[in-house]
Amino acid sequence: MKLKRTHNCGELTNNNNGETVRLSGWVENYRDHGGVAFIDLNDRWGTTQIVFHPDIAGEHHKIAHTLRSQDVISIEGKVSARPEGMANARLGTGEIEVYISDFELLNKSKTPPFEINHSGETNQEVLLKHRYLDLRSRKMQKNLIFRSELTNKIRNYFNDQQFVEIETPILTRATPEGARDYLVPSRTNPGKFFALPQSPQLFKQALMVSGYDRYFQIARCFRDEDLRADRQPEFTQVDIEMSFVDQEDVMSVTEGLMAGLMKDMFSKDLTLPLPRITYDQSMLEYGCDAPDLRFGLKIKDLSDVFVNTGFSVFKNAVKNGGAVRSINLKGAAEKLSRKDLDDMTPFAARFKAKGVAWIKMTAEGPQSPIVKFFSEEESAELYKRMEAETGDVLIFLADKEEVVCQSLAALRLDLGKKLGLIDENELNFTWVVDFPMFGKDHKARPTSLHHPFTAPKTEDLDRMEDDVFDVKTNAYDLVLNGCELGGGSIRIHRKDVQERVFRILGIDEEEARDKFGFLLDSLDYGAPPHGGLALGLDRMAMLFLKTPSLRDVIAFPKTQKATCMMTEAPGNVEEEQMEELFIASTVEDEE
Amino acid sequence: MKLKRTHNCGELTNNNNGETVRLSGWVENYRDHGGVAFIDLNDRWGTTQIVFHPDIAGEHHKIAHTLRSQDVISIEGKVSARPEGMANARLGTGEIEVYISDFELLNKSKTPPFEINHSGETNQEVLLKHRYLDLRSRKMQKNLIFRSELTNKIRNYFNDQQFVEIETPILTRATPEGARDYLVPSRTNPGKFFALPQSPQLFKQALMVSGYDRYFQIARCFRDEDLRADRQPEFTQVDIEMSFVDQEDVMSVTEGLMAGLMKDMFSKDLTLPLPRITYDQSMLEYGCDAPDLRFGLKIKDLSDVFVNTGFSVFKNAVKNGGAVRSINLKGAAEKLSRKDLDDMTPFAARFKAKGVAWIKMTAEGPQSPIVKFFSEEESAELYKRMEAETGDVLIFLADKEEVVCQSLAALRLDLGKKLGLIDENELNFTWVVDFPMFGKDHKARPTSLHHPFTAPKTEDLDRMEDDVFDVKTNAYDLVLNGCELGGGSIRIHRKDVQERVFRILGIDEEEARDKFGFLLDSLDYGAPPHGGLALGLDRMAMLFLKTPSLRDVIAFPKTQKATCMMTEAPGNVEEEQMEELFIASTVEDEE
Repeated sequence: MKLKRTHNCGELTNNNNGETVRLSGWVENYRDHGGVAFIDLNDRWGTTQIVFHPDIAGEHHKIAHTLRSQDVISIEGKVSARPEGMANARLGTGEIEVYISDFELLNKSKTPPFEINHSGETNQEVLLKHRYLDLRSRKMQKNLIFRSELTNKIRNYFNDQQFVEIETPILTRATPEGARDYLVPSRTNPGKFFALPQSPQLFKQALMVSGYDRYFQIARCFRDEDLRADRQPEFTQVDIEMSFVDQEDVMSVTEGLMAGLMKDMFSKDLTLPLPRITYDQSMLEYGCDAPDLRFGLKIKDLSDVFVNTGFSVFKNAVKNGGAVRSINLKGAAEKLSRKDLDDMTPFAARFKAKGVAWIKMTAEGPQSPIVKFFSEEESAELYKRMEAETGDVLIFLADKEEVVCQSLAALRLDLGKKLGLIDENELNFTWVVDFPMFGKDHKARPTSLHHPFTAPKTEDLDRMEDDVFDVKTNAYDLVLNGCELGGGSIRIHRKDVQERVFRILGIDEEEARDKFGFLLDSLDYGAPPHGGLALGLDRMAMLFLKTPSLRDVIAFPKTQKATCMMTEAPGNVEEEQMEELFIASTVEDEE
Repeated sequence: MKLKRTHNCGELTNNNNGETVRLSGWVENYRDHGGVAFIDLNDRWGTTQIVFHPDIAGEHHKIAHTLRSQDVISIEGKVSARPEGMANARLGTGEIEVYISDFELLNKSKTPPFEINHSGETNQEVLLKHRYLDLRSRKMQKNLIFRSELTNKIRNYFNDQQFVEIETPILTRATPEGARDYLVPSRTNPGKFFALPQSPQLFKQALMVSGYDRYFQIARCFRDEDLRADRQPEFTQVDIEMSFVDQEDVMSVTEGLMAGLMKDMFSKDLTLPLPRITYDQSMLEYGCDAPDLRFGLKIKDLSDVFVNTGFSVFKNAVKNGGAVRSINLKGAAEKLSRKDLDDMTPFAARFKAKGVAWIKMTAEGPQSPIVKFFSEEESAELYKRMEAETGDVLIFLADKEEVVCQSLAALRLDLGKKLGLIDENELNFTWVVDFPMFGKDHKARPTSLHHPFTAPKTEDLDRMEDDVFDVKTNAYDLVLNGCELGGGSIRIHRKDVQERVFRILGIDEEEARDKFGFLLDSLDYGAPPHGGLALGLDRMAMLFLKTPSLRDVIAFPKTQKATCMMTEAPGNVEEEQMEELFIASTVEDEE
């Protein structure tokens, strides 16, 4: 076989004119122009036009017309500048073509089940089953090569900053993230199971106790959850942990990474420090803890305005401890039809909202089914607060606070898109900080909002037991275009504080010992103050590439049922294998 | 808390004399000299001597004697050149000390269960249970930081060579390496199981079909085997695959990596290309396929010399299809006692050898229980072939070839060490090439010596069905100091050849479809010629660091029973978890 290429298919230019070269790759686009045959030869680097001229190709000329798309060939030929006016500016190699003088067929291809560079409307199952062909598309090659470069830049950044890359186990114990674990039965420990890690959290904290000071890993993590479009059973996270640091140190290292990536990959200068918004402010102004700041449409609270209003929907919402909030859709009066406004109610109903009220500010005055219920003072205060002007549309939610937040957050995003307020080319970063330490479970008992190792803010330490839901943590999420890229926190390094937090969470001593015994022990032996962060690499690649699906940045993704269509994983196993592992299937044999 | 360090504990020198600095770290070695207290402050980067002088430290001076080893503190103080003659040359910071003026205790430590920088004789269970403390030792910090640097250099090498780093799944199907798989029951596919990959073999071949051309990954792999000292249930391999290449291309890329590593990490110039030895030659001259070439003691075959000898042990061995082979222990007559020579027989018995014969070449002539059986011609030919001289010792094995090889290989290594022939500082690389394509199973049927995707040598293709055990492959192992660092092969890229190999291996069409369906399919759609290699990263780090155990280069290793003493993995799981996964434990409940 003649394999030794002199060049790849993406690098020949006029500078190579006259050189004899050998190329290998995949055939595409056979054309015949008056007895001269042309094909495009593809590889990862590009496309080169190959010419089979009867006077030069000799016996190989006959072969040209037998070639089919995706055949693999190796050719030798002379580089020739294309005739005046025939250059193809869309092609890196568009200045030249190669006149073939030697040829070898390395492998034939059957007709693929879809166009390699398909439009995206091809049946997903067929694409996933033949993933090795879909991965040959220009789009997927671009995406995976981008991801590879991204990964390398991230690693080099942390190496340059004296982070130590340390691999932590995949076969381990249940970790504290609280999602469902993947389990692995042990053959050598009958009846026992490994869990695949949901994160390296406990290990990276152990490494801080060990004095590694700055740890990083690009770590595979696993969650056996029901999958959405932006979830996969296994995912990759950029995982870091640092000692002798406060929140600003971790955020600053992360910002340095993002600024470097923006500069290297998009030639963009990121202004540092990145904006910070508190959790409380984000919930109030954007209705969520991952605000999309590429556009305005801020939410404003009007609850105090409508405490005693004649409009009972608003009044009752406030009286029952809920809220009345509004967004001013600046200048949208012309753009939104009556139907658009009415459709907001069923839209918000998905979040259990009973209705969406609106006021259209027209030249003839406010148009709305609800203004007639307001007092003059209420109207005046409302318009003032909302900075309402002719041409604006105000929309209102009045409900339990959670419903108001969720409905307005979703409406805001939807309207941002509809009103064309979002610059799709922008990459807008923000930090969300000062998270509450505890959330409430369905019985209103405290639960960890992050994980039980997150440290309370020092100033809140003394009132942790009394004002539990008011306690804030040094936790921080990095948000890009309204998606959480990742987050982290300063951890508890003192055993007494950790034990108090476990008590508040209703984790008794035995359970704490059983689940986190070594972590508790390690706090007794010189644990330094430490904190860290984890960023979703898959999601980062997806957002940077502005592609809608994680499948576009993962080589071999799984379906929503967690199957791999290509390998047909998961598969059947033999009875004996299960016996060796001390397990039995509870699924009835169908034979 | 005062966290913001100005320096780490390893960087202050006379150049910092007079500066006020803040350091954080772990306390070691409290000493009091006439009312002035000294401690060593440690971190990952080094050790700095801290002085509590009553006139300078003020109130903090009292604290000094309350400090215990491994307490975590933050201090501020002035850097001061040590007095003439008091510098400590063994310490990077030995020119200076820091006179403390401010102090904060960040965390107390209990007395650790062992000295952090222990001698290595500490109970292994205690060390593994408190792994976070053992990892704080200078030795483990050095090892893991080395491994991190090694990993980064490897990645950068492949990135520079235009390899694309692509992550392949951990939740997948059984792979063809043939060791026992770790299994993961699927919740969403009742009765089915994922397998953890023994290697990314099938995926990397798929990626070649996809046109990525050059793939690499530092990949976690899993084998549920009974563990030896140099095995772990999960291990890390440097995994590469290339398209349009032959064996020399893959070897050459690998050699470039090794030369770069030797230069960067050991300032050593590696002569390229590395030596190559064929499998047949290695088996003959070293008795194994991973020869340690740091020393001689080559094995020589004498079977033809003793075809008709009067010494029936030798004669019968040859008659029964076995071999007579010998090593000349050059100049060892003085060094080996009669007992040393006699002890070789029980040593070789471990490999089923019935005995080890020997001849001591003394000034008075050959001393040996066996020379009397040899004819004059046999003796003459023997001495000539073995280049035997006065002072040498010849040792002999006569048995089935396998037994001869294994026994002499082990004796050679043992004697190489005993006779002081091994330079422990040498890093000696060699390639072993031209492996047979097939081995024999217990019923003498052909099995894959590598895996079923390894390509036969083109010249052997035509006789694959007829002379099956003579067929050689383009497979290659990289050996360092007698340990296999890794290996690879050129793969089959033609479907007809792959199908023939499956037939020879007794894998019928249904089984082939079931196990490797997508791979077979992919060969139909433009599979390029390709090949690759995998190197064990753990073992590489171990050999480069000249440490005897994989545990010295893995942060959180498992025991021989595949348990993690620190996290107590594997652990128990709840009944409901198993139910969700459609499995039941077959272990009787002991309560």
